[in-house]
Amino acid sequence: MRDFSFYNPVRVHFGKDAMTKLPEELEKYGKNVLLAYGGGSIKRTGLYDRVTEALKAAGKEVYELTGIMPNPRTEKVYEGIDICRKHGIDLILAVGGGSTIYCCKAIAVGAPAEGDFWERFFVNWEPAETGIPLGVILTLPATGSEMDKSSVVTRFETNEKNGYDSEQMFPRFTILDPTLTYTLPRHQMVNGIVDTMSHLMELYISPPDDDFLTDYLAEATMRTEIDAARKALIDPEDYEARANLMWCSTFTLCGMLNNAKKTDWESHNIEHPLSGVYDVAHGAGLSVVHPAYLEYFLQPALPRLVRMAKNVWGVDPAGKTDEAVALEGIACLRRFFHEELGAPATLTELNIPESAIPRLVALTDLSCFGYQTVTAEDVSAILHRCL
Amino acid sequence: MRDFSFYNPVRVHFGKDAMTKLPEELEKYGKNVLLAYGGGSIKRTGLYDRVTEALKAAGKEVYELTGIMPNPRTEKVYEGIDICRKHGIDLILAVGGGSTIYCCKAIAVGAPAEGDFWERFFVNWEPAETGIPLGVILTLPATGSEMDKSSVVTRFETNEKNGYDSEQMFPRFTILDPTLTYTLPRHQMVNGIVDTMSHLMELYISPPDDDFLTDYLAEATMRTEIDAARKALIDPEDYEARANLMWCSTFTLCGMLNNAKKTDWESHNIEHPLSGVYDVAHGAGLSVVHPAYLEYFLQPALPRLVRMAKNVWGVDPAGKTDEAVALEGIACLRRFFHEELGAPATLTELNIPESAIPRLVALTDLSCFGYQTVTAEDVSAILHRCL
Repeated sequence: MRDFSFYNPVRVHFGKDAMTKLPEELEKYGKNVLLAYGGGSIKRTGLYDRVTEALKAAGKEVYELTGIMPNPRTEKVYEGIDICRKHGIDLILAVGGGSTIYCCKAIAVGAPAEGDFWERFFVNWEPAETGIPLGVILTLPATGSEMDKSSVVTRFETNEKNGYDSEQMFPRFTILDPTLTYTLPRHQMVNGIVDTMSHLMELYISPPDDDFLTDYLAEATMRTEIDAARKALIDPEDYEARANLMWCSTFTLCGMLNNAKKTDWESHNIEHPLSGVYDVAHGAGLSVVHPAYLEYFLQPALPRLVRMAKNVWGVDPAGKTDEAVALEGIACLRRFFHEELGAPATLTELNIPESAIPRLVALTDLSCFGYQTVTAEDVSAILHRCL
Repeated sequence: MRDFSFYNPVRVHFGKDAMTKLPEELEKYGKNVLLAYGGGSIKRTGLYDRVTEALKAAGKEVYELTGIMPNPRTEKVYEGIDICRKHGIDLILAVGGGSTIYCCKAIAVGAPAEGDFWERFFVNWEPAETGIPLGVILTLPATGSEMDKSSVVTRFETNEKNGYDSEQMFPRFTILDPTLTYTLPRHQMVNGIVDTMSHLMELYISPPDDDFLTDYLAEATMRTEIDAARKALIDPEDYEARANLMWCSTFTLCGMLNNAKKTDWESHNIEHPLSGVYDVAHGAGLSVVHPAYLEYFLQPALPRLVRMAKNVWGVDPAGKTDEAVALEGIACLRRFFHEELGAPATLTELNIPESAIPRLVALTDLSCFGYQTVTAEDVSAILHRCL
């Protein structure tokens, strides 16, 4: 087992009545609150009214940052930083999914810092010394950003999409109410499931291959996610199912499943240009890329893929070669993604032509941390398998 | 899934080289350190020298609290509080197992508080408003106190053993070096394994019985613990095995496996008088009591015991009644505790006569949180099964 450090100070309130914890959280912070959200969906669902009523009852002065877009951009961060500085914001309350939270994390460390947040943190990775407290009310589970210290922001002018990690960006509290996900369209639920499974495999299918707690926990999370997904597909308002999907997604990226693992984010890296160039949903892109990635790297990852086939998908290894067992496991994954969930299986379904592959390859970040170095030729071969 | 809140801000450094993180942790705190430990074992193993050298290199002024006993007593807490107040202690460094950590937690909240720590916190459960920062170097895995907010202290004069929980008692950092456990005698290792399995069952075998992430994670931890125990029995210096035992023990009580569970600590309650009156090791007592407890409450816990039999012990349910499957699972647990680990199976082996049962029953705390109320008659019947 490799050495590791673990630290995650996020306070989570989970459940049907999690929103009732909001007043006691608000009490801990000063008067001036920045309420940040994306489009109008929280107004349609009534969540906006519930939150603003709680803020009013707590005697807060509320300033709003609205219209945070998917792949949040630097200009929205600057807008939030200006509000924080002008009004001495004491708490940033992010209501939404990963994009809103990412944007608010950048604002949280950017506002109290001298100079330009982008240069200092997202380019030069200076350690942030302080951050405005951040609270989260999650509406869309997938990115795990509600219980981690990461942010990703896009600088549109220069086409840069940079990440930054800082303990100052950990949310102070996160409210997870699974009933808030009932109104998500089916394709968004499916994309979240694919994304969570992909995160789990990126953590699990990486060295070392010893049997240790982190791997057993990752298998347990995959089995829970698969079971819950099947139930939620039948009944999107199955509370137990939605609750498991939400908690699996958050738990996956809270750090416990990174412990002692090298991790391997290359499937995500290969997917990013698909989203970036063709505006494909991240989960849809992963549904195409991740199974093909695993088939391509069958040999280096063989022991781990055999274990996943047996322990997650219930493949019976009797009388089969390791290769056959591993491929049967990946076939189960494909059936789950492409038949049960109905997520796309090919680039063609995403309207991405073969001729696009060289450009996509050129845009793929090759900073791989898995079993072996990934080359541009590998990425090209994997994408050709996806046609 | 029941609603829950989760919060655990302990920073964990885990691994062979975890001790190299001590200097960076020491840097965060002021000059005056209270170094607290139990008997002389840390001097025999050389750990004392390593720690004091690191403290010296960090320029710390060190005060010592030594001789912390198993089941730490109020007088030792008062002794520590006096040192803290007299010398303005900035950091308490606990080097040892659960007893040392429990004692230091009580000192941490007791020293800055007005009045008597015992009355205020351990009797009246007043919320502690502040605590002296606490760091831990763990030598004996079992109680999980290195990553939780609980303490248990005994007031010898009045025969009271009280617990207290406070977020102010979370260690700021915990150093977990599995190689420090190599020198533990075999019976201590075995007791730690039984205790950890018992904790896992107390969390897992309790309502609700839905399939949700917490239960899958608990099963994963049990399987890891069992595998690692078998390897450590063969080779006590098998690093992977000792590392898994240590991390399983800590993870079990970090709070993740409590999420949404009612939990059921009655096996621990029944064991406490065995330790208290007959000075039996806690793990040895649990090895006797816990399987009998599960057999006695077979019916109310049946769905859960069936699931444990299948998912943890690999019992094949084909053609068997639920009762038979559940009993086969408990038989596997007995074989593991009593044959593989060699932990005691009967009160007789612990030199506890049948005539002691009425007194043990009278001393048993019946505040049960499991599937049903436990009566004094139930405890008596369970202990008779253990003869």
